[in-house]
Amino acid sequence: MTTRRPTLETDLLYLMRIGAPGAEKPVARIDDETYVDLSDTVTDFDEAFFGSGGLDGIRPVVAERATAGRVSRFAGERVGAPIARPHQILCIGLNYRDHAAESGMPVPDEPILFTKSPNTLVGPYDDVRIPRGSTKPDWEVELGIVIGGRTSYLDSVAEAREAIAGYVVVNDVSERAFQLERGGQWSKGKSAETFNPAGPWLVTADEIDDVLGLDMWLEVNGERRQTGNTKTMVFDPYFLVHHLSQFLVLEPGDLINTGTPPGVGMGFNPPVWLRPDDVMELGIEGLGAQRQRVVGPR
Amino acid sequence: MTTRRPTLETDLLYLMRIGAPGAEKPVARIDDETYVDLSDTVTDFDEAFFGSGGLDGIRPVVAERATAGRVSRFAGERVGAPIARPHQILCIGLNYRDHAAESGMPVPDEPILFTKSPNTLVGPYDDVRIPRGSTKPDWEVELGIVIGGRTSYLDSVAEAREAIAGYVVVNDVSERAFQLERGGQWSKGKSAETFNPAGPWLVTADEIDDVLGLDMWLEVNGERRQTGNTKTMVFDPYFLVHHLSQFLVLEPGDLINTGTPPGVGMGFNPPVWLRPDDVMELGIEGLGAQRQRVVGPR
Repeated sequence: MTTRRPTLETDLLYLMRIGAPGAEKPVARIDDETYVDLSDTVTDFDEAFFGSGGLDGIRPVVAERATAGRVSRFAGERVGAPIARPHQILCIGLNYRDHAAESGMPVPDEPILFTKSPNTLVGPYDDVRIPRGSTKPDWEVELGIVIGGRTSYLDSVAEAREAIAGYVVVNDVSERAFQLERGGQWSKGKSAETFNPAGPWLVTADEIDDVLGLDMWLEVNGERRQTGNTKTMVFDPYFLVHHLSQFLVLEPGDLINTGTPPGVGMGFNPPVWLRPDDVMELGIEGLGAQRQRVVGPR
Repeated sequence: MTTRRPTLETDLLYLMRIGAPGAEKPVARIDDETYVDLSDTVTDFDEAFFGSGGLDGIRPVVAERATAGRVSRFAGERVGAPIARPHQILCIGLNYRDHAAESGMPVPDEPILFTKSPNTLVGPYDDVRIPRGSTKPDWEVELGIVIGGRTSYLDSVAEAREAIAGYVVVNDVSERAFQLERGGQWSKGKSAETFNPAGPWLVTADEIDDVLGLDMWLEVNGERRQTGNTKTMVFDPYFLVHHLSQFLVLEPGDLINTGTPPGVGMGFNPPVWLRPDDVMELGIEGLGAQRQRVVGPR
């Protein structure tokens, strides 16, 4: 994995939320050690923020404070998801050619849409809890899209670029028995609490030079499980946002999980499932890395 | 259809939201002509309201104001959905034996879960808009459950009773081509804007003598299409809430559409689809009636 360290430019925006669950404060990351506190000007990185041009509003604030040295030092605070609980979490299934193959399913003709409960969202280093009755808990590193404005019936794929606020690493944690063997559609195996770690930061769309060529990876207990690159996506982020906008209205701050590359536990022979005390580490080039401990059911 | 007129008792709660979209005020319906205004004591019938014991809090307020004659008269205000946009809208598929049969699908062994985008929620008399590219828009009268408190891992079906704030009529409007022929799961055909009229009112759970024996009906242009009764549900509301709580966390104010009885457009031979200027009228015994005009794509 390679990471690009941000440089201090006026358009630099790496959004984070730090603090206790439910009491996170919005900040802009400058580097691994420092951040600009935005809690005096922004309530939260939520639907109202993205929907009212909040991103443009904070650009000069971050630049001015960073230049003036009005920065704070990270001091071991918990890192939350970089966005508040969204209106909806949409997910795209089988969106990497090689993952479709390992799942024994055909590459889809058009995006497969399913959903996760929005309250699955947690921070990038929070514990992931195996749900009661689970027998097949699994991992999925994914590129997450955060929507920047209310979006419906986009006329072209090109327009989708304007609708995207930024990108984030997500772990689309899944319970395969609930997903595939419990009479429901996929949502039943995607919506347990803690099943959507996101972060550590949201990178605004203009900071990503080429969202279609990002390396991504996931390890369990230090063993590499997933190795991929967004260039093998079947439907790219712009295609997805345009497509989804024909079926439903995307709200500002909505999160779209865009599918996972090969190497999920279900794809091994025999399959490999998560167990309590496992440690997942995952990341995407330029978007940072996550680390979650797996804990047993409550 | 029979309706039971409420009588003025201290435990009477028929919640409504009236006013322009996005600016509805919370009220308690007394009868067809009058209501108690609650906008000075309640922000909205939303997650915070249900989650903080708001229902119990307003009972004495409504009783006191009604007794003192502090009531207002309905004056043609628009009626909104009786709850604010929820954290999630969950839906149960094929949950009436006779509807499964007309759909040519087997009666499910356990509840089929799918979802709708929460921003599909509209008022009971608002227009229903056919989405662009739609060829098979359809209707579904359903009993909606509104969740009263944060609910996870219920130990028994009996406990589900306490988790339910009340019930509401919903029209689970569906686009069958998007639902079944577009590579996605069902959500793709369920989430277009205006696709979830709800109301006119929320009846709190204790007002419903027998939620397992309510007549329900739907007409299109005055022609009866659906005739059913909640007694033919495969999985009843208590079973559903207990079941869902094993897979995900239900938040206060969440809405669960519990499935539709026979008579949807897809079930006719040949099928019958909605067209612009059609009028849908639907209702459930004790829960009131809806009326929507169908309009073409924007």
